[in-house]
Amino acid sequence: MNVVVQKIERPDPAVVRGLAECGVATVHEAQGRTGLMASWMRPIYAGARIAAPAVTVTLPACDNWMIHVAVEQLQPGDIPVVAPTSPSDAGYFGELLGVSMRARKAAGLVIEAGCRDVRELTELRFPVWSKAICAQGTVKETIGSVNVPVVCAGVLVNPGDVIVADDDGICVVARAEAAKVLEKALARLAAEDATRKRLAAGELGLDVYDMRGRLAGKGLKYV
Amino acid sequence: MNVVVQKIERPDPAVVRGLAECGVATVHEAQGRTGLMASWMRPIYAGARIAAPAVTVTLPACDNWMIHVAVEQLQPGDIPVVAPTSPSDAGYFGELLGVSMRARKAAGLVIEAGCRDVRELTELRFPVWSKAICAQGTVKETIGSVNVPVVCAGVLVNPGDVIVADDDGICVVARAEAAKVLEKALARLAAEDATRKRLAAGELGLDVYDMRGRLAGKGLKYV
Amino acid sequence: MNVVVQKIERPDPAVVRGLAECGVATVHEAQGRTGLMASWMRPIYAGARIAAPAVTVTLPACDNWMIHVAVEQLQPGDIPVVAPTSPSDAGYFGELLGVSMRARKAAGLVIEAGCRDVRELTELRFPVWSKAICAQGTVKETIGSVNVPVVCAGVLVNPGDVIVADDDGICVVARAEAAKVLEKALARLAAEDATRKRLAAGELGLDVYDMRGRLAGKGLKYV
Amino acid sequence: MNVVVQKIERPDPAVVRGLAECGVATVHEAQGRTGLMASWMRPIYAGARIAAPAVTVTLPACDNWMIHVAVEQLQPGDIPVVAPTSPSDAGYFGELLGVSMRARKAAGLVIEAGCRDVRELTELRFPVWSKAICAQGTVKETIGSVNVPVVCAGVLVNPGDVIVADDDGICVVARAEAAKVLEKALARLAAEDATRKRLAAGELGLDVYDMRGRLAGKGLKYV
Amino acid sequence: MNVVVQKIERPDPAVVRGLAECGVATVHEAQGRTGLMASWMRPIYAGARIAAPAVTVTLPACDNWMIHVAVEQLQPGDIPVVAPTSPSDAGYFGELLGVSMRARKAAGLVIEAGCRDVRELTELRFPVWSKAICAQGTVKETIGSVNVPVVCAGVLVNPGDVIVADDDGICVVARAEAAKVLEKALARLAAEDATRKRLAAGELGLDVYDMRGRLAGKGLKYV
Amino acid sequence: MNVVVQKIERPDPAVVRGLAECGVATVHEAQGRTGLMASWMRPIYAGARIAAPAVTVTLPACDNWMIHVAVEQLQPGDIPVVAPTSPSDAGYFGELLGVSMRARKAAGLVIEAGCRDVRELTELRFPVWSKAICAQGTVKETIGSVNVPVVCAGVLVNPGDVIVADDDGICVVARAEAAKVLEKALARLAAEDATRKRLAAGELGLDVYDMRGRLAGKGLKYV
Repeated sequence: MNVVVQKIERPDPAVVRGLAECGVATVHEAQGRTGLMASWMRPIYAGARIAAPAVTVTLPACDNWMIHVAVEQLQPGDIPVVAPTSPSDAGYFGELLGVSMRARKAAGLVIEAGCRDVRELTELRFPVWSKAICAQGTVKETIGSVNVPVVCAGVLVNPGDVIVADDDGICVVARAEAAKVLEKALARLAAEDATRKRLAAGELGLDVYDMRGRLAGKGLKYV
Repeated sequence: MNVVVQKIERPDPAVVRGLAECGVATVHEAQGRTGLMASWMRPIYAGARIAAPAVTVTLPACDNWMIHVAVEQLQPGDIPVVAPTSPSDAGYFGELLGVSMRARKAAGLVIEAGCRDVRELTELRFPVWSKAICAQGTVKETIGSVNVPVVCAGVLVNPGDVIVADDDGICVVARAEAAKVLEKALARLAAEDATRKRLAAGELGLDVYDMRGRLAGKGLKYV
Repeated sequence: MNVVVQKIERPDPAVVRGLAECGVATVHEAQGRTGLMASWMRPIYAGARIAAPAVTVTLPACDNWMIHVAVEQLQPGDIPVVAPTSPSDAGYFGELLGVSMRARKAAGLVIEAGCRDVRELTELRFPVWSKAICAQGTVKETIGSVNVPVVCAGVLVNPGDVIVADDDGICVVARAEAAKVLEKALARLAAEDATRKRLAAGELGLDVYDMRGRLAGKGLKYV
Repeated sequence: MNVVVQKIERPDPAVVRGLAECGVATVHEAQGRTGLMASWMRPIYAGARIAAPAVTVTLPACDNWMIHVAVEQLQPGDIPVVAPTSPSDAGYFGELLGVSMRARKAAGLVIEAGCRDVRELTELRFPVWSKAICAQGTVKETIGSVNVPVVCAGVLVNPGDVIVADDDGICVVARAEAAKVLEKALARLAAEDATRKRLAAGELGLDVYDMRGRLAGKGLKYV
Repeated sequence: MNVVVQKIERPDPAVVRGLAECGVATVHEAQGRTGLMASWMRPIYAGARIAAPAVTVTLPACDNWMIHVAVEQLQPGDIPVVAPTSPSDAGYFGELLGVSMRARKAAGLVIEAGCRDVRELTELRFPVWSKAICAQGTVKETIGSVNVPVVCAGVLVNPGDVIVADDDGICVVARAEAAKVLEKALARLAAEDATRKRLAAGELGLDVYDMRGRLAGKGLKYV
Repeated sequence: MNVVVQKIERPDPAVVRGLAECGVATVHEAQGRTGLMASWMRPIYAGARIAAPAVTVTLPACDNWMIHVAVEQLQPGDIPVVAPTSPSDAGYFGELLGVSMRARKAAGLVIEAGCRDVRELTELRFPVWSKAICAQGTVKETIGSVNVPVVCAGVLVNPGDVIVADDDGICVVARAEAAKVLEKALARLAAEDATRKRLAAGELGLDVYDMRGRLAGKGLKYV
């Protein structure tokens, strides 16, 4: 029942890099407003913006053993996505695992549970998105699986899906969709660029987006 | 039913500037401990301290159309106060609206819902106080109203009321009371100044505030 | 019933300094994963790491009078631990009390309630761990006690216990255990140092901790 | 500043009785989906459905003195709406106040705080909608006001407004709008009656509401 | 992108009936402690215990249009599982939809959002498991999909999976696993039966489960 | 470190019975408003009212092994008070343990974690006060202690303390104080009896408690 899948398909690195530059909100829009993890997932420090292929981890409550197993499966640029099978805020992840993952060139970590040693991880600039900050230790008694489909913070994540994460949260892009989503995201950014210039110059969204007629049609009255 | 009130009374700009310098805690005390929004409203970055006349916005859940309508009603120094009629953490507000409001010289934004693009808004130094950070997009399907009374985070806000906001939260001062509240706030600050010096010199609050007799009267025993 | 205990036993200052350097997660582990306050207690700014003997304060809901009483009982390096008898997010503590405690050389404050004036306290570099940030004022009507056992954020704190606090939260070490816990914490740090070097060099935790056999024994399959 | 307004306008009792029969969801719809209190307000027992003119009470945190003051202002069929100025879950209301209000023929109680003695109140069939059930006692030290506008669970309530409450929550109807809202609510119920019969007979909402064309127009595909 | 899948595989009705009799806790154990929805999903009344094939519904925030679409896809004994793409407590579901589903012989409803008309639904004995009780209305503006995979309360649900629900919550069993899970659940119940008799007769779990040796081995001391 | 203390002092059974009849709110008041557990602890069904000596249990997160150990320590009328060292909503307790405790004549259970099989426990009339209802299973891997001091839902509980629990929550009475608290509680009930009669007859609390002068003195104005 408990397996470590060692070979997963990864997305095109150029696509992943492109998605990182787009950021969460744009990518989320570009794929039809799907794939967003719950807003209780927060970065431990502000300013990180990454995209990376997911190495998924499912493990029991209050037991972080499988994270050690997952480290071996990481290729440079990967990000572990850790989902306990029972909710817990305990601190499954801390500095030593961060050092280890940094040595393996992981892009960061997503965990629907607690994280500790946040000062040290911040100094390392190893970005973590977690549900809680909590020093409570965990055990190493029961196994789980690596690289099977998991549900993390309300979103289905398959191994090799692209995780996009920044200060706004975390968005999951299916591997097979990644190139298409990037294309749409870039188109969106290009369009926003023109809009941004007009808005920055003081034009109103009402005019830029041509909303006045439709608002009047809905019955909006100016008094 | 849905209206945009175009003319609202605004408070004296000198009073507004004065209230900004006093900060939320002092203003809240100066008006008898009323007007404080719920503590789930948090700034997206630390260090902003503003006061501004409210342009109120009421809108449906998950629909940010009326924010675009509100931008046109902003005068320099105003702050939109956005209250959805149904609770939602979706990201009604992001960078483009921030750029547009910045171009209109808005002082910031208060929204009892989600905000996104917080990295970009932080770089713009456009302060937002919100209930959540969430990239989830919203629609533009249903209208609401601008500059009608709204309840935001538990407090009644009338258009033209003064919004005072800083790292402690948000306090609402009725327009008609603003000058009087500023006067009391300044008196409070002056009194605190003297107290602060004595405390900083090591005197005890027990003596500065002359509390020992009353404590003994309540039955406090030193053992 | 309501007392101020004026004489408490304090731990050895060298031990306290040692625990500060170890940090919350290590100390929590060193004492068998006990003593951790609930994760809703958060620092008002990032980066502080302290250890200090507790001066405990129990007080009624929405009434901060006893904090003033407690200031007189502080010796340099102490930290007040404030536990209301009924839950409240109100702002029991602000700048003036911070100035007063700073003048008394307190190490910071732990309060299972709200804190206000966080900008000023941050500028003072006076660290506070609290359950909420909230400007709501409190009264001075009802007395409580100082230096009696209290339960704060789920943990029993006796006066003179060592409070260790940093970005990960707060851990309480019983005074009588402090030297022994420090010893174990230092041993742990020393062991971690060696481990950290091996992990930083790219070795896997699976090998460093010799986990492969036990994982296989539990039935983990690599596919 | 603190007043008891003794004379308030009350709505037509026949209208109030009518609204009680319509229930919260229907009344909320009939007035354009406004006036609904936050969903954290829950009845202490299932099955009560009432409507009543509001006698509003604003009072300090953890202090229930003004509820005693409000009892004198109750006329038969009224309901006190109690809003503390600072959030608290303490038990402001219990059996004795329930007995007193029952003797004054109050319709029940709405309180954005805690309630206690719920077994006794349930036996009395005195319905209470509250934010929490909590035995924590309160004090009688500081005054507030009766029959001034208050914000309760996010909604502005004026004295004499109609409170409609049942297992779904609480809806506030402005006194001046009550007759018109009742009319719309009854029309809605009549229309629902016909719809209910068709649905109960197995017809589909898709046909009863004639939705198929509009769904196809939005691009819905059946596969 | 938005589709209604009209043909789904359903599990063997005898297996579904069997799972209903086992209840949530037993089924959850029998399938290796997976498939449990988050504990914020609660029944609107106590005592219902059902199992049913899932008809999945994904829809936008605050928009219940697709529930009407889903009704047509229900076969007797099915249960709709409704997952909005953005979190909301609004009341997507009420009496009329309940009457319609009852007429179609649905087994109940699971919705990660709000439910209203709970008194009427309770009288109908139409069981609903929801995240909130809230009268707030929703719109019918935007389409979603029926019978595609959804994530509901943290669990992946495919159309035709078995939903087991009772007072303990909701457990999802993959269609292909259902017969095997039932077999294990029945074995578990049989074993529990023997254990229950011994425990009811006053024997200790320590002896029934033969725990004393292992506890001693872990170092447990009796003093 | 992990022990089972087999001999504890228990309070006088007559005192325990007396406290059960007084109920939580009265007992909490009688002992100076202390000892109340947090209001997130709720009964799994309404109407139970008990008092019982505590057999305390501390155990690791998601591990219920020590509950089995505790059963052996129960004497008729006792109540286990279970406090995990790390927060968790998992279902540590279910029907079989309930049957076993019922056979040992336990009065019920208090657990700051999850409970499952609530339908069966309700049918057994075995009352449980818990933080959550959740079917998630736990393991039996790590030991804890029985009959050592624990902190449960924010309150220190020593073995042999009296637990009073009903629909209002849970109150802890120190064993040594129990007789004195009962005496005060009975006096309070007697006084309330007279007051209840006057209030039920329509007298106002303002007069019964003689509040009018003090209110006027605080500045309350009737308008």
